[in-house]
Amino acid sequence: MQIILLSGGSGKRLWPLSNNARSKQFLPLLQSPSGETESMVQRVVRQIGESRLSGEITIATNSSQRDIIINQLGEGVDIVTEPERRDTFPAIALATGYLSMTKKCSNDEAVVIMPCDPYTETEYFDVIADMVSAAENNAADLVLMGITPTHPSTKFGYVVPCPENSAKNIFRVKRFTEKPDTERAKALLAENAFWNGGVFAFRLGYMVNIIEKYITTSSFEELHSRYGELPKISFDYEVVEKAESVAVLPFNGKWKDLGTWNSLTEELSSNAIGNVAIGEQTENTHVVNELGMPIFCNGVKDIIVAGSPDGILVCGKECSENIKNYVDNLSPRPMYEERRWGNYRVLDNTTYSDGYQSLTKVLNIKSERFISYQRHNNREEVWTIVDGEGVVVIDGEIRNVSRGDVVVIRQKQKHAIKALTDLQILEVQMGNPLIEEDIERFDWEW
Amino acid sequence: MQIILLSGGSGKRLWPLSNNARSKQFLPLLQSPSGETESMVQRVVRQIGESRLSGEITIATNSSQRDIIINQLGEGVDIVTEPERRDTFPAIALATGYLSMTKKCSNDEAVVIMPCDPYTETEYFDVIADMVSAAENNAADLVLMGITPTHPSTKFGYVVPCPENSAKNIFRVKRFTEKPDTERAKALLAENAFWNGGVFAFRLGYMVNIIEKYITTSSFEELHSRYGELPKISFDYEVVEKAESVAVLPFNGKWKDLGTWNSLTEELSSNAIGNVAIGEQTENTHVVNELGMPIFCNGVKDIIVAGSPDGILVCGKECSENIKNYVDNLSPRPMYEERRWGNYRVLDNTTYSDGYQSLTKVLNIKSERFISYQRHNNREEVWTIVDGEGVVVIDGEIRNVSRGDVVVIRQKQKHAIKALTDLQILEVQMGNPLIEEDIERFDWEW
Repeated sequence: MQIILLSGGSGKRLWPLSNNARSKQFLPLLQSPSGETESMVQRVVRQIGESRLSGEITIATNSSQRDIIINQLGEGVDIVTEPERRDTFPAIALATGYLSMTKKCSNDEAVVIMPCDPYTETEYFDVIADMVSAAENNAADLVLMGITPTHPSTKFGYVVPCPENSAKNIFRVKRFTEKPDTERAKALLAENAFWNGGVFAFRLGYMVNIIEKYITTSSFEELHSRYGELPKISFDYEVVEKAESVAVLPFNGKWKDLGTWNSLTEELSSNAIGNVAIGEQTENTHVVNELGMPIFCNGVKDIIVAGSPDGILVCGKECSENIKNYVDNLSPRPMYEERRWGNYRVLDNTTYSDGYQSLTKVLNIKSERFISYQRHNNREEVWTIVDGEGVVVIDGEIRNVSRGDVVVIRQKQKHAIKALTDLQILEVQMGNPLIEEDIERFDWEW
Repeated sequence: MQIILLSGGSGKRLWPLSNNARSKQFLPLLQSPSGETESMVQRVVRQIGESRLSGEITIATNSSQRDIIINQLGEGVDIVTEPERRDTFPAIALATGYLSMTKKCSNDEAVVIMPCDPYTETEYFDVIADMVSAAENNAADLVLMGITPTHPSTKFGYVVPCPENSAKNIFRVKRFTEKPDTERAKALLAENAFWNGGVFAFRLGYMVNIIEKYITTSSFEELHSRYGELPKISFDYEVVEKAESVAVLPFNGKWKDLGTWNSLTEELSSNAIGNVAIGEQTENTHVVNELGMPIFCNGVKDIIVAGSPDGILVCGKECSENIKNYVDNLSPRPMYEERRWGNYRVLDNTTYSDGYQSLTKVLNIKSERFISYQRHNNREEVWTIVDGEGVVVIDGEIRNVSRGDVVVIRQKQKHAIKALTDLQILEVQMGNPLIEEDIERFDWEW
């Protein structure tokens, strides 16, 4: 069997920790059984490994998340990145096309599609294993997970089962319903409807046939290059609601979307993460600090405080659902980003009266990783090596660097760096305009 | 007449904006009549200039405040700095010695001693003008200001007037009382006692005689060098309580100590100072942000949020009196400091596994100012010039620098920089140990 983990999304509902470069599933705020912190995506991959599911994992994502996924999960995972952002149907079609054409999986092999961000326990994966068995036993063309509702939520699509159904843990599906209003949601609960959990199992050939309605090819590269021909539509609309034979398996265990600060804080490893001091007159308050400087809280109740290089949030827990609208324009660019080679953090970003800018970053480059050979037309960079050892290339000339060394990269000079041990660099960028897009990449054989 | 403004104190009651390098009286948070921001010390100097007081101002302070005073008030003020911290009597003795021996003021000239931090209005200075007249007219050896109490406070010393007194606005003093408990304070109010406002007027000769009890000299330099011989005692104990002829003039206008966040926020120029966004579900909340990154607040009530390079405070207004105990050890060093040449802000301070440290700062050097010629034994510095033009000296060699230039200063190299226009520099310091005390200063003729 094959598992396709969907890692999409971006945005600022968990601002300032999530930003356009770091979606919520990558925040290292949960506690793993070994006592370390882990992100949602690290947690789900660990849980799959510990479950009865024995499938190989392919992550379907967009190119902006590729580096952080490799950084968090290692080089061992298969990653399929969309060439452009469309919707869940094309994304899943591309990943299943990869399984069929590149990995040469059989059309009979079962495939599970699952999101990477619900916060769940072991039983969730047990139900998924049962879904896989149901698909393998031809219980239906498409098998999906129905979450037993806890309240008439207006945030989920619903799955209505056939009432005349006999089997205890598997139902045929009568119909699907869009996110309802509260009145409709109450009526759906009376019909024993489930929330659509976004988990699907089918045999690979089922999706291969659907892809062929749009693109006929046996080459994954061709499918990838013709990605724009796939309709911009959700998997639910294009596949689930059109399927003739659909079964639903209920799940009624722990299942939480940690998509708001209020819901996330209930699962945090501690009330105070990072450089934090909390006074005695504080109640039900969570502080998460990714900054070097300390945060001190006292005399407050029911609030969330979060600090990152992107900004500082001080928010009543009850209000945390709506922060996105307020913060969307607060941080013009991500101030922290994980890359394949490590990560960077912006310390300062100043624009001078003549429009010229400076941007000061700490770069952490992991041992043996490298920053690609590149050139900027409108900016200079000064690297001060503060820890570790590495090799620098400037216009083809190689030189070893270590603590105390300074590398000045003028406009239009090609440059690259490779870490021999974990490297820390203070980088000052200067230019006008100073934009990420001012970059040309070249090959360099290390 | 002469005015001695006492600028003492330090500490963290207004942390993170106040620190050991920036006392509360230097925080630029008040609004001047012209709509700009001003600090408490800038406000009182402006108010003196606008008042009936026509005296020259001498500021009595300690050496750590000298640079920030010059930076905020300009080069035109007289500053007398104690060679070591003792108490208010020696500090006032030194400043009056300066008036007598260096400025050659007459023993008959009236002197007013006043603190630089009460938040007051015009009437306060009118009473001080009346105190000066009283001293000049020999109403008493020592004339002091009595603040009409608003409540039985335990935080102030009290001045008890003679009841048989006749004049309406001037009283002879019967006795002084230390900070009382609440019961004693209520009894003092029944006796029509005043709070001791810390404002004193006398003729210069009166203090000169008292100094001569300890040190007989006509040289201010000698007084300064023998400063340690003056007793470590407050002006109240040594002078006020021993005086035989003391008068008190009452003041009952606006008089506030802005020494806690709660009292300060009532006088701030705005609810949101700096890069701040406040959501609609927020009540009675003040946010002061000296950081580049944004602070967003919503769904909170009756709190103070303050951010500076030293840290971030989130505090219920009612709890703001006690923060000092919590934050005393949070910031190991001031992360923002004003110097005579401008200011610096620490962006990053990292200690590596081998004890080596890096410290990254933004330096803002004002046009025509300079950083003294100096040498460090255990650290290197890398300066990246990001804005402006200047002249650098390294081991006696002079070179002009401007935007984009990089200056590397190795251990033991003498170096200095002068700004030709306002200069901004990103400085990376590296060393072990990395301490402020690792500095030797030399002369350089610009």
